[in-house]
Amino acid sequence: MKKDLGVKQAVFPMPVLMVAAYDENGKPNVMNAAWGMISGMEKVSLFISEPHKTTKNIRKTKAFTVSIADVAHMEAADYVGIASGNDTEDKWERSGLHETKSAHVNAPVLEEFPVCIECELDEIIEGDNHAVIGKIVNVCAEESVLDENGNVDPSKLNALVFDNFQSGYYVVGEKVGTAWDAGIPLMK
Amino acid sequence: MKKDLGVKQAVFPMPVLMVAAYDENGKPNVMNAAWGMISGMEKVSLFISEPHKTTKNIRKTKAFTVSIADVAHMEAADYVGIASGNDTEDKWERSGLHETKSAHVNAPVLEEFPVCIECELDEIIEGDNHAVIGKIVNVCAEESVLDENGNVDPSKLNALVFDNFQSGYYVVGEKVGTAWDAGIPLMK
Repeated sequence: MKKDLGVKQAVFPMPVLMVAAYDENGKPNVMNAAWGMISGMEKVSLFISEPHKTTKNIRKTKAFTVSIADVAHMEAADYVGIASGNDTEDKWERSGLHETKSAHVNAPVLEEFPVCIECELDEIIEGDNHAVIGKIVNVCAEESVLDENGNVDPSKLNALVFDNFQSGYYVVGEKVGTAWDAGIPLMK
Repeated sequence: MKKDLGVKQAVFPMPVLMVAAYDENGKPNVMNAAWGMISGMEKVSLFISEPHKTTKNIRKTKAFTVSIADVAHMEAADYVGIASGNDTEDKWERSGLHETKSAHVNAPVLEEFPVCIECELDEIIEGDNHAVIGKIVNVCAEESVLDENGNVDPSKLNALVFDNFQSGYYVVGEKVGTAWDAGIPLMK
């Protein structure tokens, strides 16, 4: 017997995404977004509202990056979710993060985080179902998080997990199975 | 120095969502979707393509539910991602899952999973940026996963985590911080 809780944002786990873009003068800004997901083989959708400095920047530069935040940089990742580039002039400097310009799009690749999705702006959906949609042009990653086949090994990411129930940050624990494999017994 | 990997679906962690709907005869079906996220205070967006039986069902009944898959039911959760309701007539029965009709929408609440988001269909975005968007009407949860204040305690969910790099399932590990708190030192 389940209990009614009303309207809640009850997806779990959520990622901790670092969304970064330049302004019109090439000054970097970055924000923390949990409400973002792959939305197609070459697409990522971010549910970030219009007033964010990052949304304004993306409208101007038509590009952004999405990095996966890790435990080692939780303080900076959380800070960029508290402070706003709209009213904190030195937000980028205070974050302590570093960037280099992407080789593929006009957006900053954050040095501290091991995996970065480089996107061109694909579409901004207006209205009630507002979404900022990027076309993935490339993903780049540190060698230290790759396995022997050159794929990202998630166990090396130390990625943060976000919970929208109690606003907690977590680590990812042990691997318990593999998709398209765990369910095979029920196929027979 | 990061290495280019090309186009990858590089968000991590992803949830393991059980998306359930009835067909026109009230027969339940459920699928496994990692590409879904909260997209507004009262919205959830699912990036599931048109050919899925579930998408067809949602078009007919205008409702669906989203449950959070847990470790105890990994085999069933994975199975409903392998088999298709389009060609496996007894997919629901084989899954071993049970359901009761939602008190709020015309869609099945899965008994085995502790948290369920009950949605009315809000909009299906057509075209390149296809999305099935639900309006959250209610969330229901088992008492066993609630804390003393009646909120969902994520540490009690044993929620599965999905990785799109290597298609692994993981558990969530220890809590390491709290949002809007961890970053406060950098505000000063």
